[in-house]
Amino acid sequence: MATLVSPPYFSPNEDAEALRKSVEGWGTDEKGIITILGHRNAGQRKEIRVVYEQLYQENLLKRLESELSGNFERAVFRWTLDPADRDAVLANVAIKKPEIDYNVIIEIACVHCPEELLAVRRAYQVRYKHSLEEDLAQHTTGDIRKLLVALVTAYRYDGNEINAKLACSEANILHEAIKDKAFNHEEVIRILSTRSKTQLMATFNKYRDDHGCSISKNLLDDGANDFQKALHVAIRCLNDPKKYFEKVLRNAIKRAGTNEDALTRVIVTRAERDLRDIKEAYYKKNSVPLEQAVAQDTSGDYKAFLLTLLGKQD
Amino acid sequence: MATLVSPPYFSPNEDAEALRKSVEGWGTDEKGIITILGHRNAGQRKEIRVVYEQLYQENLLKRLESELSGNFERAVFRWTLDPADRDAVLANVAIKKPEIDYNVIIEIACVHCPEELLAVRRAYQVRYKHSLEEDLAQHTTGDIRKLLVALVTAYRYDGNEINAKLACSEANILHEAIKDKAFNHEEVIRILSTRSKTQLMATFNKYRDDHGCSISKNLLDDGANDFQKALHVAIRCLNDPKKYFEKVLRNAIKRAGTNEDALTRVIVTRAERDLRDIKEAYYKKNSVPLEQAVAQDTSGDYKAFLLTLLGKQD
Repeated sequence: MATLVSPPYFSPNEDAEALRKSVEGWGTDEKGIITILGHRNAGQRKEIRVVYEQLYQENLLKRLESELSGNFERAVFRWTLDPADRDAVLANVAIKKPEIDYNVIIEIACVHCPEELLAVRRAYQVRYKHSLEEDLAQHTTGDIRKLLVALVTAYRYDGNEINAKLACSEANILHEAIKDKAFNHEEVIRILSTRSKTQLMATFNKYRDDHGCSISKNLLDDGANDFQKALHVAIRCLNDPKKYFEKVLRNAIKRAGTNEDALTRVIVTRAERDLRDIKEAYYKKNSVPLEQAVAQDTSGDYKAFLLTLLGKQD
Repeated sequence: MATLVSPPYFSPNEDAEALRKSVEGWGTDEKGIITILGHRNAGQRKEIRVVYEQLYQENLLKRLESELSGNFERAVFRWTLDPADRDAVLANVAIKKPEIDYNVIIEIACVHCPEELLAVRRAYQVRYKHSLEEDLAQHTTGDIRKLLVALVTAYRYDGNEINAKLACSEANILHEAIKDKAFNHEEVIRILSTRSKTQLMATFNKYRDDHGCSISKNLLDDGANDFQKALHVAIRCLNDPKKYFEKVLRNAIKRAGTNEDALTRVIVTRAERDLRDIKEAYYKKNSVPLEQAVAQDTSGDYKAFLLTLLGKQD
C-alpha cells in the first residue's frame, strides 16, 4: 500500500499556474510546491510537467532545480520525475560516484518486475545515450561486475510456476558454494540472475528448510567482503523488498549524521507503492513511528516534504 | 530488400478457406499451401492464422505440422510463425540439441536490433515459461556461457553517436587480447556485449586501420577453438549480417549433403527482410545465382517452397 495522498480529480492547468507563482519573482514558495507536488501521483505529475511546459515554455524540473537547493531540491526533483526516469537518474548517479553505490543498482535490478526494469533501461538510454549495462560494465571490474551486469540485464520469466526439483538442486548448489566460500562461483550468479522470482523464493525456502538457516544469514556469517554484501542485498531485494527497505531506512536514520541520500531514495521511490507496509515494518522493528524518526532527523522544507510523502495530512 | 512477393490486397477468409481445402480429406495439396503462404507477409500470415482458428476451431500451424513432413514441413511451419516466435523456436531447438548450436543463438542476439531481440525474449517466455537466458545459462558453462548470455541479455543503445576516443581505446583492448590469445578476456566480452552497433563498427574500423587486418580475420589466425569461433560469428553478425548470411548459405550448399537446417533458417528468416541483398552477395561470391544453387541441392515441395520465398514468380 502506498502512503501518497493524491486527489482523484485535479487540474493540471491550475497546478501549473500555482507552481509558476511559487517559483516566480523574489523568493520561492516552498510550501506551495510541497502542497501541490507532494500530493500528485506519477500520472498527474506528468500532466503537470506537460502543461507547465506548454504554458511557460520552460521545463518545470529545470526551474525547480534552479530555485531550490540541498536535500529538499534533490527530493523534489527526483519525486517529480517519471518513476523509470528517476531510477535511470539514481542508477547513473550511483555509477558515477568515485566508489559505485552497488546497493542502488542492485535495488533497481532486483526489486522491480521484469517490465519495470526494462522501462528503466529504456529511460536510461534516452537520457544518457548509452545503455545502463554499458556504463555499469565500464565502471566496474571482476566479480562485482559479473554479478551487477547479470542482474541488470536480466529479463526474468514473470510467471508463478515452481519447479520443486530445481529448487532443491539449486538450493544445494548455493549451499555448497557458500560452504566452500566460493561466493563468486558462476553458478551462484547464474541462479540469482536468471531464475524467476517465484522460483528463487522456492529455492531460498528450500535452502532454509534443508540447512536450518536462511541463505542471507549464511552469507554474512563472518567478515563479509564487498561481493558477499552485494549478494546479500540482491537476495534480500529479490526475496522481500519491504523488509529490505525497512532496513535501509533504519540504517539511514540511526547512524550519526543521517544518510539523506538513502532516506530520500526510499521515501521517494516507494511512496506510491508500498511505503505504508514499509512504515508498518519499521514500527514493528523500532517501536517508533517512521514519521517521528524522520521528523527528528530532518528539518525545514525537506522534512515537510518527506512527511507529506509519508502520508501526513496537511 | 526482401525477396518475398506478397499482394497488397488479400482476403484472410479466402486464404483460410483455401488452406482448409488443401489439408482436408485424402492427400494434401502442397502446391496450394505454397501458393498462399509463400506469398503472404508476417502481418497477413497472422491474420490468416486468426481467421482459420475462428472458422475451423483448430490451430493452422498444428494442422500443417500433422499434414506435412520433413524439410518441407519444418520450412512451412517456421515461415508461418510470427518472426519473434519463430526465433524463440529456433533458439530453443538450438539450446536443446545435444551440442548447442551456438551460431543460431549468436545470430539472434547480434543481428536483430535491440527491440527485436527483446521481442524474441518475450516470445520465448510465452512459449516456454522460462527466460531465454535461463535455459541458455543452464545448458552451457564456462567462457561460452559468459559470452552467449551477455549477448542474449544485451539491450544495446540504438543511437548513431560515435565516441572516436573510445573506439580507439577499445580497438586497442581488443587487439591486445587477441595478440595475447586472451580471447576470453572479460573486457572482450564487455565490449562486444554492451556497446552500440554503431560504436562497435567504429571500433572494428579503427582496429583494421591501426593493425592492418580486420579483427575477424585476426581471430581465426590459427586453429581456432569453439570460443574463438563464437566470437568470430558474433563480430560478423554485428558488423555485416548480409555478408555473414551469404557465407552461411554458401557453407550449407557447398558441403556434401546439404545443411537443410541452415538453408531453411536463412531463407525463412531473411525473405521479408534482406534476402535480395544476400542473393546479390551470393552471386558475386559464387558466380551462380542462389536460386540455381538451391534448386540443384533440394527437391520436391521443399525446393518449390524455398524458390517461392526466394522471389520466383509462379
